[in-house]
Amino acid sequence: MDAAKKAEEFHRRLESAADATEAALDALLAPTTLPGEITRPARLLEAMRYATLGGGKRLRPFLVIESARLFGVEDASALRTACALEMIHCYSLVHDDLPAMDDDDLRRGRPTAHKAFDEATAILAGDGLLTYAFDVVADPATHADANLRAALVLALARASGLGGMVGGQALDLAAETAAVPLDQAETLQMQAMKTGALLRFAVDAGAILGGATPAQAQALHRYGKALGAAFQVADDILDAEGDAAALGKRAGKDAGRGKATLVGLLGLEKAKARCDELVAEATTALIETGLGEKTEILAQAARFVAARRS
Amino acid sequence: MDAAKKAEEFHRRLESAADATEAALDALLAPTTLPGEITRPARLLEAMRYATLGGGKRLRPFLVIESARLFGVEDASALRTACALEMIHCYSLVHDDLPAMDDDDLRRGRPTAHKAFDEATAILAGDGLLTYAFDVVADPATHADANLRAALVLALARASGLGGMVGGQALDLAAETAAVPLDQAETLQMQAMKTGALLRFAVDAGAILGGATPAQAQALHRYGKALGAAFQVADDILDAEGDAAALGKRAGKDAGRGKATLVGLLGLEKAKARCDELVAEATTALIETGLGEKTEILAQAARFVAARRS
Repeated sequence: MDAAKKAEEFHRRLESAADATEAALDALLAPTTLPGEITRPARLLEAMRYATLGGGKRLRPFLVIESARLFGVEDASALRTACALEMIHCYSLVHDDLPAMDDDDLRRGRPTAHKAFDEATAILAGDGLLTYAFDVVADPATHADANLRAALVLALARASGLGGMVGGQALDLAAETAAVPLDQAETLQMQAMKTGALLRFAVDAGAILGGATPAQAQALHRYGKALGAAFQVADDILDAEGDAAALGKRAGKDAGRGKATLVGLLGLEKAKARCDELVAEATTALIETGLGEKTEILAQAARFVAARRS
Repeated sequence: MDAAKKAEEFHRRLESAADATEAALDALLAPTTLPGEITRPARLLEAMRYATLGGGKRLRPFLVIESARLFGVEDASALRTACALEMIHCYSLVHDDLPAMDDDDLRRGRPTAHKAFDEATAILAGDGLLTYAFDVVADPATHADANLRAALVLALARASGLGGMVGGQALDLAAETAAVPLDQAETLQMQAMKTGALLRFAVDAGAILGGATPAQAQALHRYGKALGAAFQVADDILDAEGDAAALGKRAGKDAGRGKATLVGLLGLEKAKARCDELVAEATTALIETGLGEKTEILAQAARFVAARRS
């Protein structure tokens, strides 16, 4: 396949994963209560749906689905795991947008959840999504093998919690008001936690569901790490260069707020070079899985992440 | 054993469960990172410890531990599950106290988390505790059988999420600003979700860990339901009658805020009679477990919950 065909195939599968995720999230966030639930309050459910449905490229779900496909995992298992991860991602956006945090009014070109509803509802909708993510993964509908489900819950919690995403957000906020700005190592660690951990989990989830060998799992993990870092550098570059229309949020807001970014530390050109290096690292890690041609779609994903313009 | 001796034994075991829970939570919230974590940011961890350690009767952990004991479950399994549940309870207090929610400055006689730290840190500490709860339950250290761990995660998520505790908090907040106050059925449902669901989970967890028969599990579930309802009526009575010193928070604040309470709907005397009925229901359910004398400690717990003065 030539480069243009490969890119076309990538976009087709990215879109197909997004459609499948949207439909599955819509079904999971239906008003019907599950055993053990009492009732799903209408307005809270509406806020959870608002925060989750109708948006985004669904990059994390795509990565779960395609990593799982490397091992021939059933799509239903991967899709439920993908939805759980996307719920965590979406809850984190809702809480990050709150007035006490980043205080953003716009997200993907729409009012943020606390603007569309109210602050209390946004906090609870985030809590509800975070909780529901673990419900979805632990449910036997995700996989018949409870060992895999428990392993997924554990990995997802570690990626999302105080030693992962939540911790990264705490470090990022602390850096804004700190007397001394974060140095490069601290910035990379903060970013590896804040955005990297969930992207890494996406491919780890594929390895867990697929019963990867330790060597394969480690190689995929390295891929996820490089991809996550590339995603963040690209984000910093976008923030420095992008325009608000393409982003659906204010451009330059991170730099303007004194947030730690790699562009700020290295300059634009070096940051772009670092991004290319990370794509190369990601591609090498894929070769090391020994899974051959099948991994081409994930190599495309790394290139896409590094080159994205929104 | 006479009544005084039984009460003494109950308080001894309540205190012993509280001590064990405090020590286990302290160990779980240590700075040491676990595999899959990157680092535990110091201030975030401090806020999570502040919100979790050094307070409360630890009624929920006690119920997990004593329900599990009915079936001879190892204390380590029950204790980790108890800690997870307490983390969920504590996170819910942190988020409920936020300015956008109940806007409370005091909790157990100390500044609330967002007062002692800041609002962003309180939100993240809550998110971190909620996430960590599922980590703790899913970890093989909790039980060798992954089926039990996954079942615990699922039950805990359902009790805590949009169809349980989080949903109850949403209904409670909505009631404050609604044109029509909640009627009795709506108030009972809201309370069954907001405070009942976690108390019910505590005894359900014992049944899950202990491999209870369906009949035993159902009887324990009925006990948990009645106990949860009694807890909430007692809370409404306390709010109406109590003094701030004993409560460590403002008395009458719920009624004053127009919150739906059973005392408001039934009057004080009928509410007290309802509380007695619920204790009787709880005790009957315990007899129906067929587990005999061993359940006496849980009967004491129901009486304690109904009679508590703080």
